[in-house]
Amino acid sequence: MSTKVDESEQQELAQPFGSCPLPIFDHPQIVLGHGSGGKLSAELIEKVFVSRFRNPTLEKMDDQAVLDVGGVRLAFTTDSFVVTPIFFPGGDIGALAVNGTVNDLAVGGAKPLYLAAAFILEEGLPAADLARVVDSMAIAAQNAGVQLVTGDTKVVNRGKGDKVFITTTGIGHMNRATELSADRARPGDKILLSGFIGDHGITILSQREGLEFEGAPESDCAALHGLVAAILDEAEAAGDLRSVRVMRDPTRGGVATVLNEIAQRSRAGMILRESEIPVRETVRGACELLGLDPLYVANEGKLVAVVAPQIADRVLSAMQQHTLGTDGRIIGEVVEQPSGMVLMRTFVGGTRVVDVLFGEQLPRIC
Amino acid sequence: MSTKVDESEQQELAQPFGSCPLPIFDHPQIVLGHGSGGKLSAELIEKVFVSRFRNPTLEKMDDQAVLDVGGVRLAFTTDSFVVTPIFFPGGDIGALAVNGTVNDLAVGGAKPLYLAAAFILEEGLPAADLARVVDSMAIAAQNAGVQLVTGDTKVVNRGKGDKVFITTTGIGHMNRATELSADRARPGDKILLSGFIGDHGITILSQREGLEFEGAPESDCAALHGLVAAILDEAEAAGDLRSVRVMRDPTRGGVATVLNEIAQRSRAGMILRESEIPVRETVRGACELLGLDPLYVANEGKLVAVVAPQIADRVLSAMQQHTLGTDGRIIGEVVEQPSGMVLMRTFVGGTRVVDVLFGEQLPRIC
Repeated sequence: MSTKVDESEQQELAQPFGSCPLPIFDHPQIVLGHGSGGKLSAELIEKVFVSRFRNPTLEKMDDQAVLDVGGVRLAFTTDSFVVTPIFFPGGDIGALAVNGTVNDLAVGGAKPLYLAAAFILEEGLPAADLARVVDSMAIAAQNAGVQLVTGDTKVVNRGKGDKVFITTTGIGHMNRATELSADRARPGDKILLSGFIGDHGITILSQREGLEFEGAPESDCAALHGLVAAILDEAEAAGDLRSVRVMRDPTRGGVATVLNEIAQRSRAGMILRESEIPVRETVRGACELLGLDPLYVANEGKLVAVVAPQIADRVLSAMQQHTLGTDGRIIGEVVEQPSGMVLMRTFVGGTRVVDVLFGEQLPRIC
Repeated sequence: MSTKVDESEQQELAQPFGSCPLPIFDHPQIVLGHGSGGKLSAELIEKVFVSRFRNPTLEKMDDQAVLDVGGVRLAFTTDSFVVTPIFFPGGDIGALAVNGTVNDLAVGGAKPLYLAAAFILEEGLPAADLARVVDSMAIAAQNAGVQLVTGDTKVVNRGKGDKVFITTTGIGHMNRATELSADRARPGDKILLSGFIGDHGITILSQREGLEFEGAPESDCAALHGLVAAILDEAEAAGDLRSVRVMRDPTRGGVATVLNEIAQRSRAGMILRESEIPVRETVRGACELLGLDPLYVANEGKLVAVVAPQIADRVLSAMQQHTLGTDGRIIGEVVEQPSGMVLMRTFVGGTRVVDVLFGEQLPRIC
């Protein structure tokens, strides 16, 4: 039973699941911005992918799917890593591929357990580079307490890939009674951030463009499962696990993109205080030089958490006691209006809208 | 806690897990053959990957990992699809990506349930091509009874990818008491094959090289979950589920590669009868013209099963009653000697060794 596709079937194929018309995707070609995590990405995902695969799990659009298999609740997440360069200060594509997937499981409240890794190698890749990447994955997996249990390797012709792409897929066990979801932020909730933003993005950009800064930044690439566990332990100890509304690791598109998504999904507003958002001087300097806003720059080892007000101080203190959260802060609050929007009180006392990014600030960041 | 890699750590990184020395991978660069499914692939996987990630599940080296999560047995498998061209008679990269992963779950005895799909798109890909691929995936998923529940999209610069690469990862439920494993073939067991071989590989090759044959073949791309279920149902009805020793879908490297792997893992020999192996005239002709052996050419909708002699006829009959197994045959037997080798009685009455492929017969076939 082959799944043939030919002209005569176009009509049927255009609407595989009945008479509901597919949305118009009004771009003749894929552009870099479609992989940015911003508005263009969202449009591609909604109009081309979700519209065709419609099911309640996919439509939740969280960073991980929560599944039931034989009565056990699993988290399931996948990510392709295409970062260039593949080695950078603070990490490499291998550490990123393991930690990124571990983080997507952890922020959903799952205990990360197993990884699958699929490699697309470009013909001519130095074997020593591959070995270094795989070493790095093995160490990252060991540090995160996950096992890599299955994999695949493909080799593409020279000029049809770029050194190495890694797709890691993870399975976690939803072993706590969490109720984390991007639609659960409520007016009055506090917005927590675990530390300095923009380190990963600025590191990659500096490497790629050969920029030199004093006190050059390093990627913050790290596994967040321990920090997440510390937060959930604290909420559990307070007997109020549901007060942790949603957690995210602000990668592509940065903190601004993650908060906009939560605001929209929760139909609530957010007010941030610029003075509370930790940005290293080098990162701020590089951003000014390059015309970037650090709020949109990728992180690979930071956590954003929205929590109920009654538990915010306890959670902040638990965060700050963890190695990866020592610079944690409450950076703002959830408010009723303007619904679906993120505002920021600036240093100088004004208020500006922190909008959704349209296209690509910095491609191939992860 | 960043996972830094620098020169001073090379010694430690070379041996992340204690004092066991890593094997020497004696190739300076990755070549196409490292993705072939043959000896070069096996060497890369063993020396670069498995040696660094050592764990009992990975070392089983089956097409899927079997995991325990909260007392439930899961199958977990991942595959990157990089086939070129992305559209071909009988299917496309989308159908292949869904069916290939469904098949890896099914042949392990799992009921395929959920898929994750990660797309690496090349800048400039026509949006209509992407939509056609995704349509095809949606139809294949519906036909296979699986849900695509999570995904990822990255876009790489023009010339750093090749239209579209898809990595699909699947979760299945091991809901039967099967004991399928490549090390379970025993002398006396029968080797079953579900139909004509080489259709997929020759289709891709013809498209790529612009070859024209009379009665041009079509890819056999199909989901095998139903055929596998029919076989296991029959064995269960006979009260002898363990008599189905191992099943495989002979993709990269073809039937020859799969049988060699089983012979080696089971420390048994195999004798095939060339007269019983179904090869279409067009495929045989194309193979002769191109100097290929159909036994090594990829299939994407065929099943190889090794079953105990007492149940072979019943299983064959169940196979033949399924749409995808009407041309099924018993193509040979497992024997004691020569251990780890596959022999074939040829049309003309001789015997030849069906060896393991060294490198690449045909790159980027799936």
